[in-house]
Amino acid sequence: MSEENRRFLLAERPTGPVDEKTYDLVKEPVPSIADGEALVKVKWISIDPTNRTWIGEEPTYLPPVAIGEVMRGLGLGEVVESKNENFPVGALVNGLTGWQDYTVVSDAMPLMLVPPEVKADPATLLGTLGMTGCTAYFGMTEIGEPKEGETVVVSAAAGAVGSIAGQIAKLKGARVVGIAGGPKKCAWLVDQLGFDEAVDYKADDWRKQLKDATPDGIDVDFENVGGEIMEAVFARLNKDARVALCGLISGYNDTEPPPGPRSFGNLLINRVKLQGFIILDYYPRFGEAIGQLSEWVGEGKIRSEQTVVEGFERLPDALNMLFAGENTGKLVVNIED
Amino acid sequence: MSEENRRFLLAERPTGPVDEKTYDLVKEPVPSIADGEALVKVKWISIDPTNRTWIGEEPTYLPPVAIGEVMRGLGLGEVVESKNENFPVGALVNGLTGWQDYTVVSDAMPLMLVPPEVKADPATLLGTLGMTGCTAYFGMTEIGEPKEGETVVVSAAAGAVGSIAGQIAKLKGARVVGIAGGPKKCAWLVDQLGFDEAVDYKADDWRKQLKDATPDGIDVDFENVGGEIMEAVFARLNKDARVALCGLISGYNDTEPPPGPRSFGNLLINRVKLQGFIILDYYPRFGEAIGQLSEWVGEGKIRSEQTVVEGFERLPDALNMLFAGENTGKLVVNIED
Repeated sequence: MSEENRRFLLAERPTGPVDEKTYDLVKEPVPSIADGEALVKVKWISIDPTNRTWIGEEPTYLPPVAIGEVMRGLGLGEVVESKNENFPVGALVNGLTGWQDYTVVSDAMPLMLVPPEVKADPATLLGTLGMTGCTAYFGMTEIGEPKEGETVVVSAAAGAVGSIAGQIAKLKGARVVGIAGGPKKCAWLVDQLGFDEAVDYKADDWRKQLKDATPDGIDVDFENVGGEIMEAVFARLNKDARVALCGLISGYNDTEPPPGPRSFGNLLINRVKLQGFIILDYYPRFGEAIGQLSEWVGEGKIRSEQTVVEGFERLPDALNMLFAGENTGKLVVNIED
Repeated sequence: MSEENRRFLLAERPTGPVDEKTYDLVKEPVPSIADGEALVKVKWISIDPTNRTWIGEEPTYLPPVAIGEVMRGLGLGEVVESKNENFPVGALVNGLTGWQDYTVVSDAMPLMLVPPEVKADPATLLGTLGMTGCTAYFGMTEIGEPKEGETVVVSAAAGAVGSIAGQIAKLKGARVVGIAGGPKKCAWLVDQLGFDEAVDYKADDWRKQLKDATPDGIDVDFENVGGEIMEAVFARLNKDARVALCGLISGYNDTEPPPGPRSFGNLLINRVKLQGFIILDYYPRFGEAIGQLSEWVGEGKIRSEQTVVEGFERLPDALNMLFAGENTGKLVVNIED
């Protein structure tokens, strides 16, 4: 076990994307553990849009990371020392590890032990079979509730959550349209994941593409992006449509809140149900989602892709890659050098 | 029975408030009826914010009134001639009569017969015990669902729907804050209707008033207005709050859709459920609402006020009065000269 614990501590709150002033990279001794605790060696870190919301000035659904505190983040690690029989040495742990080599865990923390029978690569454990997959699962099945033949639109569809959400809607018999940036991602959605259509939001004619791809309007919006894409989707919502409001990534780097959608009035006219959700609320039910997702993955019904960044020191860069849309599927950082 | 049928026909679509060019006032013969029909003499017309949405270019939840067609409107009338035993002479009828002296009704039309045992003045029959009361009832009890001790905010609270919605929330044990224009309306809400607090949106410090009146945040928004008032309310919504999206009157006279709320992101962070609704969808259940409302009115638990405009020819003016906020409670026009 390495003799030091590298940690990214929050140094100052960024006004846009994170930069070299945002974090201090420090090296501290490996922590020691007390009775009831276990030491986890973190191996992989999950990069998620919500990471950016945690370092703003204002509380969101969690308090902001304090200046001087380790950066909050989801990760996958292995128990390397234990004084708690619930966390035996060798067990894999999935949860809020933070951006650091080591973390101390105990029963009080919402961490998932990866069941030994679940065999999957780290990116899948953090992605499809982790918080990411659970987000797609609950948002689509419990809020979007697509019915056979309905039209479902997923924004940031080539992202980790969106790509799974769209595949779940296909499994429910819906016609699925993904919105993604660039022809390569769009082709991946249709050719590899089985989406019915893809809209390239980087193309000049994306509004026309969206219209052409949804001739019968939109019944479900799985919303990850916000901004003008959401505005255009809202304008096409059908009577009794549902909006699973999962993320608003287009605004997370903004210094002040972006204007809301001008098509807001359509939520009234078409009796739309919109539900914001935060996946941590579903934590007690993760087992249910992961059971179903494992089955689908095993049957080849849900496919995923991953973008792996190598090296602990590249964690801040990886976060900016996510906002620049440089990843396809789940973005993870391998921090074991 | 008068020998002519005065009618306001839509002449051109207004770009802002209605004006002298919007309607043609014509006089036509009283229509004759066929088997299965009845002739209704319209006596009172209800003025509602949604009237304005029906004469725009775009379809809303109903097709726009066509140029040359009689203005759509809710009204109360009496059967004066009948070839349909469901509409006996002397019966009172409540529904989409249009802006005219006479209308022909039949079984196919969604009109309510006022039960003979219901004794109330015309403004109450059109208001608290009509479509207005039903809107407040279903929006508050089925979407807002206020619980004991929660904070409910009602915008356009001195209007016909808002004043009833707020009183229903009080009956459910909530703390109720009304937003209205001017000290007189605000005093009426608190002193006469029992609202806990009122916020005067015409005062310079209305944002501070809203903050002070909702120290524990907002659990239910019964939204009638939209615009910057809704934006300020959304910013104060608590975790698991509900928004009953009933109307967006601040934008109905705009020539293009107003920007959406900058506080939209709070719907995500606080897991808000927002539901747009149109009262006509609840038509089959109106009896249930009117039964409960009649009981509350009879027990003195729901009070109402009315603003009565006299004269058929003043119908267009009355619509503009509504948007200028010149009414308190239900606004009706007595068209019997």
